[in-house]
Amino acid sequence: MPAAFADRFVQSARRLGHPLCVGIDPHLGLIPTAFRAGAMAPGAPDTAAAVELWCIALLDRVAGRVAAVKPQSAFFEALGPAGAAVLARVIHEARARNLLVLLDAKRGDVGSTAEAYAAAYLEPGAPLASDAITLNAYLGLDSLEPFCAAAVRSGAGLFVVLRSSNPGARDFQDLRVGERPLYERVAEALAPGLSRLRAPETDWSGLGVVVGATWPEESRRVREILPRSLFLVPGYGAQGGSAKDALAGFVPGPDGRLEGGLVASSRGIGFPAEGRDGDAASWERAVDRALAAAIAELTSAVR
Amino acid sequence: MPAAFADRFVQSARRLGHPLCVGIDPHLGLIPTAFRAGAMAPGAPDTAAAVELWCIALLDRVAGRVAAVKPQSAFFEALGPAGAAVLARVIHEARARNLLVLLDAKRGDVGSTAEAYAAAYLEPGAPLASDAITLNAYLGLDSLEPFCAAAVRSGAGLFVVLRSSNPGARDFQDLRVGERPLYERVAEALAPGLSRLRAPETDWSGLGVVVGATWPEESRRVREILPRSLFLVPGYGAQGGSAKDALAGFVPGPDGRLEGGLVASSRGIGFPAEGRDGDAASWERAVDRALAAAIAELTSAVR
Repeated sequence: MPAAFADRFVQSARRLGHPLCVGIDPHLGLIPTAFRAGAMAPGAPDTAAAVELWCIALLDRVAGRVAAVKPQSAFFEALGPAGAAVLARVIHEARARNLLVLLDAKRGDVGSTAEAYAAAYLEPGAPLASDAITLNAYLGLDSLEPFCAAAVRSGAGLFVVLRSSNPGARDFQDLRVGERPLYERVAEALAPGLSRLRAPETDWSGLGVVVGATWPEESRRVREILPRSLFLVPGYGAQGGSAKDALAGFVPGPDGRLEGGLVASSRGIGFPAEGRDGDAASWERAVDRALAAAIAELTSAVR
Repeated sequence: MPAAFADRFVQSARRLGHPLCVGIDPHLGLIPTAFRAGAMAPGAPDTAAAVELWCIALLDRVAGRVAAVKPQSAFFEALGPAGAAVLARVIHEARARNLLVLLDAKRGDVGSTAEAYAAAYLEPGAPLASDAITLNAYLGLDSLEPFCAAAVRSGAGLFVVLRSSNPGARDFQDLRVGERPLYERVAEALAPGLSRLRAPETDWSGLGVVVGATWPEESRRVREILPRSLFLVPGYGAQGGSAKDALAGFVPGPDGRLEGGLVASSRGIGFPAEGRDGDAASWERAVDRALAAAIAELTSAVR
């Protein structure tokens, strides 16, 4: 069996000294001028090629400096079949640069459909096979089971959305079920499964959860329920969550530094304002500065 | 603005006399011998071509006999980029046969990510543009908004999962929030939005919901909350729901027959047991028989 995702990520983050994960969100409206080929639109010629150029250039900036990248599937799907081919190449190129790939796809379905999703994204050798994936558990624990079974075989990580970072997260996730909000009930339901994806070296579980950086109090409560579950924390940076808030659910590791999850930043790294309209070299410098700033902030905050 | 999905589906179903929607679920393990090209596997040569052959052959069987088809995105995604290309062609060929396409993708995400999903699947002209899509609302009402906005522009239909047909649906969907189960609370939250997608001819709303055929009592309660929301009812046939159960949330239309949703059957139509190992003609005959039986049963049950 290949090494477990939780071991691979946590050991890499310990070595680098921070838990930053860079989101790969090729938003057509934000791709810098230097990568554009005329009008950018899902059907326009060269749009997929321009997106691929930007993605690979971003991988080149972050390789060796972060443990993982998080491509957002939606932006690739928006390009149609050409986008799926770009995503496959981005996943391949990320792994070739020793970056773990956490595909943000928030899939969730039942029975043989869930098996098909697991085959698409977790089966080693599949064109879109990733090291981890995000999931939506609304359909129930049996909808997660095919992903768990695939993850046990392949060593993949799973991140179930508990508490998202948008204002509307309150609509359903915070509804009171008895004494507790729904997202805590989902967390409780996941707890018995943690041991199945427990990684032997670091004792973290690859059955992870998504908790937004804008909700530190919620992160702490989820950590009590799931003491060894990796957190994926989106919303750091552009969405307004501070480094301290993003680390609210992290706990001291063997070296005394906070660990236990991935802190994701997407637009703040890939689309820095000063890199928008210049040449490729000025975008590269702007990305390097944004990346260095985020790494410095998180490296300091985990101490 | 193009005609609204709810009008297009309901008027077509009235003309045909039944609400059957045929699921297009190209499960590799079930593709009949006649369409197979050697070993079927996500990476194997000709697998995508065999899947496409089967999908188009199924469209040819159902064209003119049902109002809509429901491709399950997962089975196409499992084939990687080649699968996305097959899905694009299946959508195109379905529309060329005057079949409405409801893409079963259960997407759900926030902000610009939701906008990207809406662009991928609802924007007219996009390679994977469909007439309707299934959604997951766990992330909140604001996660649905980009889909609603796109649907208002394009006339598309949206089907939000409330109560799925799997045993695990109980885990979260049935949790009590105050006096009512969670799925009813989700239904209540959708109610104010129904009018935005109200179709002028039939007065049905294209802001639909998914309620499994195995839960007739739940369908009736959801109908009370959402009197003019189209239902997508999966689980009829292979998953054990009867025609009567599938129609539990339907109401009498102007001609006295029950209407108000789509009753989906997938494996029962596309993978009839007797059509599995023969030639293409014997599969076609088996599909025709299964289709005729389902149509006869539903035509009788709506009266």
